[in-house]
Amino acid sequence: MNKNIGILGGDLRIIFLSKILAKDTYNIYTYGLENANFANSNIIKCATLEEMCKFCDIIISSIPFSKNGIYINSPFSIKTINIDETLKILSNKRLIAGSIDKEILEKANKNKVDIIDLMADERLTILNAIPTVEGALQIAMENTEITIHNSRCLVLGFGRIGKLLSKNLKELGANVSCMARKDKDLTWIKSYGYKDIYIDDLSKNLNGYDIIFNTIPALILDDNKLKILKEQNSNAVIIDLASNPGGVDFKKAKEYDIKVIQALGLPGKVAPYTAAKYIKETLEKILN
Amino acid sequence: MNKNIGILGGDLRIIFLSKILAKDTYNIYTYGLENANFANSNIIKCATLEEMCKFCDIIISSIPFSKNGIYINSPFSIKTINIDETLKILSNKRLIAGSIDKEILEKANKNKVDIIDLMADERLTILNAIPTVEGALQIAMENTEITIHNSRCLVLGFGRIGKLLSKNLKELGANVSCMARKDKDLTWIKSYGYKDIYIDDLSKNLNGYDIIFNTIPALILDDNKLKILKEQNSNAVIIDLASNPGGVDFKKAKEYDIKVIQALGLPGKVAPYTAAKYIKETLEKILN
Amino acid sequence: MNKNIGILGGDLRIIFLSKILAKDTYNIYTYGLENANFANSNIIKCATLEEMCKFCDIIISSIPFSKNGIYINSPFSIKTINIDETLKILSNKRLIAGSIDKEILEKANKNKVDIIDLMADERLTILNAIPTVEGALQIAMENTEITIHNSRCLVLGFGRIGKLLSKNLKELGANVSCMARKDKDLTWIKSYGYKDIYIDDLSKNLNGYDIIFNTIPALILDDNKLKILKEQNSNAVIIDLASNPGGVDFKKAKEYDIKVIQALGLPGKVAPYTAAKYIKETLEKILN
Amino acid sequence: MNKNIGILGGDLRIIFLSKILAKDTYNIYTYGLENANFANSNIIKCATLEEMCKFCDIIISSIPFSKNGIYINSPFSIKTINIDETLKILSNKRLIAGSIDKEILEKANKNKVDIIDLMADERLTILNAIPTVEGALQIAMENTEITIHNSRCLVLGFGRIGKLLSKNLKELGANVSCMARKDKDLTWIKSYGYKDIYIDDLSKNLNGYDIIFNTIPALILDDNKLKILKEQNSNAVIIDLASNPGGVDFKKAKEYDIKVIQALGLPGKVAPYTAAKYIKETLEKILN
Repeated sequence: MNKNIGILGGDLRIIFLSKILAKDTYNIYTYGLENANFANSNIIKCATLEEMCKFCDIIISSIPFSKNGIYINSPFSIKTINIDETLKILSNKRLIAGSIDKEILEKANKNKVDIIDLMADERLTILNAIPTVEGALQIAMENTEITIHNSRCLVLGFGRIGKLLSKNLKELGANVSCMARKDKDLTWIKSYGYKDIYIDDLSKNLNGYDIIFNTIPALILDDNKLKILKEQNSNAVIIDLASNPGGVDFKKAKEYDIKVIQALGLPGKVAPYTAAKYIKETLEKILN
Repeated sequence: MNKNIGILGGDLRIIFLSKILAKDTYNIYTYGLENANFANSNIIKCATLEEMCKFCDIIISSIPFSKNGIYINSPFSIKTINIDETLKILSNKRLIAGSIDKEILEKANKNKVDIIDLMADERLTILNAIPTVEGALQIAMENTEITIHNSRCLVLGFGRIGKLLSKNLKELGANVSCMARKDKDLTWIKSYGYKDIYIDDLSKNLNGYDIIFNTIPALILDDNKLKILKEQNSNAVIIDLASNPGGVDFKKAKEYDIKVIQALGLPGKVAPYTAAKYIKETLEKILN
Repeated sequence: MNKNIGILGGDLRIIFLSKILAKDTYNIYTYGLENANFANSNIIKCATLEEMCKFCDIIISSIPFSKNGIYINSPFSIKTINIDETLKILSNKRLIAGSIDKEILEKANKNKVDIIDLMADERLTILNAIPTVEGALQIAMENTEITIHNSRCLVLGFGRIGKLLSKNLKELGANVSCMARKDKDLTWIKSYGYKDIYIDDLSKNLNGYDIIFNTIPALILDDNKLKILKEQNSNAVIIDLASNPGGVDFKKAKEYDIKVIQALGLPGKVAPYTAAKYIKETLEKILN
Repeated sequence: MNKNIGILGGDLRIIFLSKILAKDTYNIYTYGLENANFANSNIIKCATLEEMCKFCDIIISSIPFSKNGIYINSPFSIKTINIDETLKILSNKRLIAGSIDKEILEKANKNKVDIIDLMADERLTILNAIPTVEGALQIAMENTEITIHNSRCLVLGFGRIGKLLSKNLKELGANVSCMARKDKDLTWIKSYGYKDIYIDDLSKNLNGYDIIFNTIPALILDDNKLKILKEQNSNAVIIDLASNPGGVDFKKAKEYDIKVIQALGLPGKVAPYTAAKYIKETLEKILN
């Protein structure tokens, strides 16, 4: 792995990543992180992107790369960094970022930028399940007046997040039900000692939960289901972990006075240092 | 258990307790809870303590009963409720509260108040370990930039809280070390798969922790130990769960720029509803 | 599900299955189970297969269906039951058995037998992982002079069996290493807190284990690896859970005086009643 | 710790202990272990006890020290070793054994033998809970036709063994009920997620178990309770872990055709090597 690395924009995770890389003998040059606190480190803040490019062939940028398709996601910068202009400057460089739109990927290719999407690496998505699930537990603890211990939890979906979340909930003493579609998943759910709920039977099984976690990126908790919760005077708090647009009809939930927390980007929020370490591990596997 | 119950002062837990009792066919009369929201319940707010006493022979009050020895702990009241005057009015009544000073117990006896300290009931202190430990996990999650998973945690003390906390930390994936004094505890610690640290060897074993939880109500993390942490450039966050005055030299910790969170009364703060349910269970065992 | 069911041959699991079905209001007719003890049940032993067919349209047979391709697997019978002859008699019947050879499936089709292989149902193979893993633990306990607690265990493969086995070993207090080939599996292995070993690095990582469990149906522990174990004076016991021909060079292991236990068909051996219940659940899902 | 150690009689555990000590730079002299296989070790077999005493001031003997009060427990010897004669020869030596009768302790004192009972050391009894509980699991696996997973288990008593056993059963997927007498224990039982049964309510709660583990050294499962099991046509297997005379009316159990397994001395039987390691650890703590 080349010893000079450029860091372009990014959130708290990327700041931690910069520090971890700097401690690990890499030379770090940053642009678009003016407001980051890099005290006690030898991280260099570049005045221009071009300056950074003089030193670095590998540039790491934000996760997600952009929130609007026009500017790079750079919450710690005072500047707005235009993607089109950036890609021109980064020609013949390697650019590593996360959750990059197809359109941007194509533009990068046109500009001969060797672009890599970190989030396309299955290792990182598996690792990110850990801080995501801990974040979900934290949010559940913060938004209920009960303990997870002895609570009745419903987990919608039995993928990476659903599996790990159910395990942790049970270990903390919760009564766990899981909803899934596939026979295979339902069999595993049962064999782990959770209650198994077939997706088509969800409406009949919404009663009595304290916390409902959604992990499915599809409108599972639609008007219909929310109405059932309302009619049952459910006190359930809904925590939606599915990526945008999420799995809950937020408008209807508000109308029915059902508490919903949309929890996105948890790794970067609840454990930015751990998230940064996972990115570093994945980076090194990609680059070596 | 008598069906009329008076509630006198108290925090969020006592409000939840009132609601749970009211749902469970008890008739609830309150005094000193003017600011509590009892909408959709048939809980009666009395204008005077005397009025409440007309209906109730059993009066439940705050945990702790008082914070200064003079007034009843009543954060949801606009009044200050003097203990001496109250005890006179409660003569021949049964008064149940928590963490009552010896002096107040004596005064109650003189006034022929049948006073009971809930916190003297071992069942309740055991049950309270559950929300205390969940609260400790929540505080750890909120005050670190890492996940508990894979973190290095040190638990000082292996009593009720220490045991349950170590178990949960390990289940969430932490590397757990426990410090204790007794051979017996050290043997259990080892057999649970934690690293065992003898109390006299603590100074030599303070290195490399991310989170240090103290459960011992004695000055364990004194100037000496904090200095060691400082010299090692430790990033450890200290979470002190021991009751006042706690187990950390807070002044020195501040001086050395070591992050300490003093976490008191967690059951009432992080899970007031669960805490109220435990009080109800204990009440019913005491009264029946 | 038809209320008359025929049972044809089979091992202890099939005997338990017969009893469970008989208790559950089915009428059970058996053939090829002369030596089974059906006391206190209303199970009928038929004198001929033809007699059984008079009453039953659904016939359940052995798992595996045959051990040699010629006779039905019927350890509790005094007869040998020829498959070719049987299939002719079962024409137009539904025959349900397990692990049926392709050749037999074809013959059945020719004879218009509606044949179903239970073991092709993923639900049953998932459920069978539970008794398989418990059986593996039992064998490990019986064949070592140490406790699983604190032992060093290596699990080869991270499929159904590998996952569940690693989990149980860790919960019992073992130090667990897992070997896998895929990045994805290695990431999960690490995130569960086990040591991750890439398959190509196995030779370098064979040192220091007390128990080695193989779950991979391929020659993993070949002469080369066994030689390494021998040279290290390893005391490791090898438990091979992979289906025939297994994953160990048994001849070489014997030559090198390495203890290997080949553990096949564990569900039927260690927990025939549980295995029978799982078959019943699966049967009902298939038939309904 | 003196580098010359004598080993006098003993079972498989003591043989393993000898080997572990011999590997660890101690010089081992044995007497009363003629049939032990000490190949590939430098362990010395002495012809007489007097010869051993020439070299050794510390002598380790059997656990239990004697089974009849007259001879030393020495199953690997061709001799009978009389205790009275032995104590005379061991005058002024230190003798360490386990479960020593009061009468023998007094005789030892009279003969100026510095006698120490290993089993009086709480560390060892705690550590021994681990192989005892694993042994109990193994016996349960071997004596039932079901998996522990999903089975209904009743644990009588919530001391060292009861606590660890309940934990392991639950982790393996069992439904666990625990019986205890003290409020404190019942509260812990509930908070761990097991069903709590008060000792006086046992008769009403004997229904529906697959396995009943007794850990209480008192006649808990008396004629009365066994009769209830019989009347309910219970299939429960009883595993009695309590030391002699145990907690089951064995005669009545036989009469009622209830399967009871008396499991004594499990550490030495199921994990003699681990048990020997624990003895070594305890020895070194006693001697240093």
